[in-house]
Amino acid sequence: VYSEQYLIERIAAKIPSEKRLPRPISAKNGLLLGIGDDAAVVAGRNSLDWVITCDAFLEGVHFLPEATPADSVGYKSLARATSDIAAMGAVPRFFFLTLAIPANRTGQWFDQFLQGMARAARELDIRLAGGDTTQFSSVAISLTVLGEARRGRTIARSGARPGDLIYVSGPVGRAELGLQLLQSGFGRLPRHRALLRQHFYPRIRGGLGSWLADNRIASAMMDVSDGLSTDLARLCTASRVGARIDAAHIPVPRIPASPAIVRLKLDPLQLALHGGDDYELLITLSPRNVAKLRRAPGFSQLTQIGEITRSKCILLVDSGGSTQSLHPEGWDPFAKPKRK
Amino acid sequence: VYSEQYLIERIAAKIPSEKRLPRPISAKNGLLLGIGDDAAVVAGRNSLDWVITCDAFLEGVHFLPEATPADSVGYKSLARATSDIAAMGAVPRFFFLTLAIPANRTGQWFDQFLQGMARAARELDIRLAGGDTTQFSSVAISLTVLGEARRGRTIARSGARPGDLIYVSGPVGRAELGLQLLQSGFGRLPRHRALLRQHFYPRIRGGLGSWLADNRIASAMMDVSDGLSTDLARLCTASRVGARIDAAHIPVPRIPASPAIVRLKLDPLQLALHGGDDYELLITLSPRNVAKLRRAPGFSQLTQIGEITRSKCILLVDSGGSTQSLHPEGWDPFAKPKRK
Repeated sequence: VYSEQYLIERIAAKIPSEKRLPRPISAKNGLLLGIGDDAAVVAGRNSLDWVITCDAFLEGVHFLPEATPADSVGYKSLARATSDIAAMGAVPRFFFLTLAIPANRTGQWFDQFLQGMARAARELDIRLAGGDTTQFSSVAISLTVLGEARRGRTIARSGARPGDLIYVSGPVGRAELGLQLLQSGFGRLPRHRALLRQHFYPRIRGGLGSWLADNRIASAMMDVSDGLSTDLARLCTASRVGARIDAAHIPVPRIPASPAIVRLKLDPLQLALHGGDDYELLITLSPRNVAKLRRAPGFSQLTQIGEITRSKCILLVDSGGSTQSLHPEGWDPFAKPKRK
Repeated sequence: VYSEQYLIERIAAKIPSEKRLPRPISAKNGLLLGIGDDAAVVAGRNSLDWVITCDAFLEGVHFLPEATPADSVGYKSLARATSDIAAMGAVPRFFFLTLAIPANRTGQWFDQFLQGMARAARELDIRLAGGDTTQFSSVAISLTVLGEARRGRTIARSGARPGDLIYVSGPVGRAELGLQLLQSGFGRLPRHRALLRQHFYPRIRGGLGSWLADNRIASAMMDVSDGLSTDLARLCTASRVGARIDAAHIPVPRIPASPAIVRLKLDPLQLALHGGDDYELLITLSPRNVAKLRRAPGFSQLTQIGEITRSKCILLVDSGGSTQSLHPEGWDPFAKPKRK
């Protein structure tokens, strides 16, 4: 068994692929950014580019088959795929749904699934443009989402520079807290429903991403889909830099004080560092751009959590000032099957 | 259990979707052709458009898990997805691979899979631009392919007019013959290997499709992926026309004369009418364009099999001159699970 990253590297090494092409684009090609980021970029009409991403959402891997309502499967699969478009600074426009379902899911389950996906499509202001539908032994959803960005304004993972400040767009670890409560049987209590919302129906930061792109404020950006520790490591690798993160500044989830939940001994910082599925944006920017952030959509939730360093290590500074290495311990489908 | 078509209609009815927008495109949108054809079309740079298709290839549904070599899974999944681009008259450029595999397929199987896909990518002159990789209980592949076409030159399913002639680009039913031999245990004999080639490593008609588009010769086009009877019905529905097909003119597969195979009582015409997976092009064109076909790539294999009619029935005329209705009996994943 190998890590997802290792498999991706083998795919890119074996199959003729395009990573990044010189700008300006040639008339022969049309690819501005290829494999290795949240999404690829191809040249569009006028001075717009198309941003394209693919995302799988699989029963038993990305969602618990029994515990997940059908409308959440529809909602979340589209929201998380669209988050990759927001994370490039693009505005989502169209999507393609490849849907494989067992014959016994073609009735009521299918209707509720469609309701959830339709709600996400309306909230995200995105339209279905095609896809593929087939029968299968499990529910397997694959989404392709297209977004639009002004030419040259997309924000890749690779632009972070030493001295840049690191922000997250909101609290991380909430979806993981919801999942853990669900798995421990607390999900069915009405007063914990709100805690499951981020797990079942994640909000994505569409407006913020495109605002940062249009105003050329961020140097690098991606969404926190697999956990802060894992995604920050990816951003740093792509940018060939390191980072220093301040544990006390990370917006951690608030754990309900009921005795039964306290007994689970959930650590808010661990949830925030390694929990996936939040779809907040991880943003780096030059200190000279900080003042401009005040006009950003969702400014009140933007939190500076650290800064980019020249040394390629990723360090976590705790509240006492002592420093340790932060290892990527977020979601890897090959390391921990069926974790979420 | 419902048909694929019924599910697609429910998806399109429930989820905000775009079918076809007025040309010329507005600056606000960028979609030229949405749900309902082989592929969607969005506006590209200069006077080029991007053509986009999605295609799933699933273990136990689209390929037999035991009998299919890993390199065929890689080759065929990419070839059949790319066929939808050719069927729009576009030139394939980039693809996105969403790959879900069990942990025990990450070794030798994965290497052979990549070899097959790399070979297809080189033959089709197409580059990997991104995707998603994850663990799953079965092999589930989803491909998104982008192709380029000159603005306004893509060929939809909906343009056939009464009096147009109907062509296929080559023999149909060969892949189905290969599959039937495989399922009957004849596949392992070396002298039948060639018969399995179209099933495992289908050739697609890339050059012909884009030539027809560039020269504005075809009125409608699609690939024969689910069987002639099913795909012709789709083309006729999209064009609001009917068709009359001449059984004697359909290029049927030649069945080997060995006694053991003769005993299977395979009917070449039935294989050709209802067998899927051939990826030949189904083309309609005005009689005044016939003379221009001589310069088409693969002209010698182009065969006229009938004509488009105003009456919306699809009729099959046999060699004796008698006429019957031709019903769509090709591949439907919901009607016949695990058939191919």
